[in-house]
Amino acid sequence: MTKQDTKLRILNEAAKIIHCKGFNNTGIQEILNASRVPKGSFYFYFKSKEDFGLQLIDHFQGFILRRMKDQLEASDASPLERLRRFFEGTLEGFRCGALAGGCPIGNLAQELGDSSDKFRMKLGNALDQMEDCVVRCLEEARDQGEIDQSLDPKETANFILNSWEGSILRMKATGGVEPLITFEKMIFDRVLAR
Amino acid sequence: MTKQDTKLRILNEAAKIIHCKGFNNTGIQEILNASRVPKGSFYFYFKSKEDFGLQLIDHFQGFILRRMKDQLEASDASPLERLRRFFEGTLEGFRCGALAGGCPIGNLAQELGDSSDKFRMKLGNALDQMEDCVVRCLEEARDQGEIDQSLDPKETANFILNSWEGSILRMKATGGVEPLITFEKMIFDRVLAR
Repeated sequence: MTKQDTKLRILNEAAKIIHCKGFNNTGIQEILNASRVPKGSFYFYFKSKEDFGLQLIDHFQGFILRRMKDQLEASDASPLERLRRFFEGTLEGFRCGALAGGCPIGNLAQELGDSSDKFRMKLGNALDQMEDCVVRCLEEARDQGEIDQSLDPKETANFILNSWEGSILRMKATGGVEPLITFEKMIFDRVLAR
Repeated sequence: MTKQDTKLRILNEAAKIIHCKGFNNTGIQEILNASRVPKGSFYFYFKSKEDFGLQLIDHFQGFILRRMKDQLEASDASPLERLRRFFEGTLEGFRCGALAGGCPIGNLAQELGDSSDKFRMKLGNALDQMEDCVVRCLEEARDQGEIDQSLDPKETANFILNSWEGSILRMKATGGVEPLITFEKMIFDRVLAR
């Protein structure tokens, strides 16, 4: 097993635990046990728990951005159809339990955004990059006449992403996907409607 | 000092700490120190940390609902004006730092919603009651012809509340109030526009 494999295994195992329990509530020892590496090995890859947290955000972000780009930059559907398909895909993921635990970046923004500038900036950057995927899709939609010319893609994407994160958050309190269904309806029937 | 005063002091002191640090990351001892009560006194009022957490949610909820009702049920402005005034008031609160730390109910929903049915139901109920304040305001707005008759007050209020929570969450990553400004603009110019 290469060093890169070991590091990835630590990040993958830690991601599962932290997605359920939160960052502060997860100890290094729990991560070591789950990934079956000794403490020294952990500190070979990560300088501190903070450094590990920052790299974990990169890890989550990579996963989410790949998924967003795959779907939002596809060439087999119109920009708005791709956007709707992306949200319906995540709705399906939550419905079947595959995405239980909410959005890992949203969770960490809630938990760590206020705690240090390093975390705040890293999380802000991750959310900005997710937003940029939506901006590009809305720019295309505008150029193709699918949405009002008066809608600013940047502002609209910001609102859409934040509303989406808020709907995912609300699902933690309702225990069902209704908030995401209402989100999709309001975004496509009111916000993006021509 | 009456028993009720002591209990309220514990809740007030704990609220400040937990609003900043989160529930799981705050120990009972820290709450005891801040409220200057002995451990036995804490367990006189609260059966366990979970029981304390549930009562703390009631405490936060009471504070938020009083504020929402005061503003959304006022009689000196139209329903939509009251709604706008409420959101502008919270925007001002965040701008001047008075509301730093985000929405306490949103924070706890993110942190604890998945952790136990008791927490989930308590938080779900708190958010439902906040939503009901917005529903009543939108029903009045509809009856007075301020919004489209086709807008469902319940669904719209659900979307507004979730988008608002999402914008507050995003502020933790941007470090500024831009997400709330965009939220207000999109809600009033697109979602509620006739």
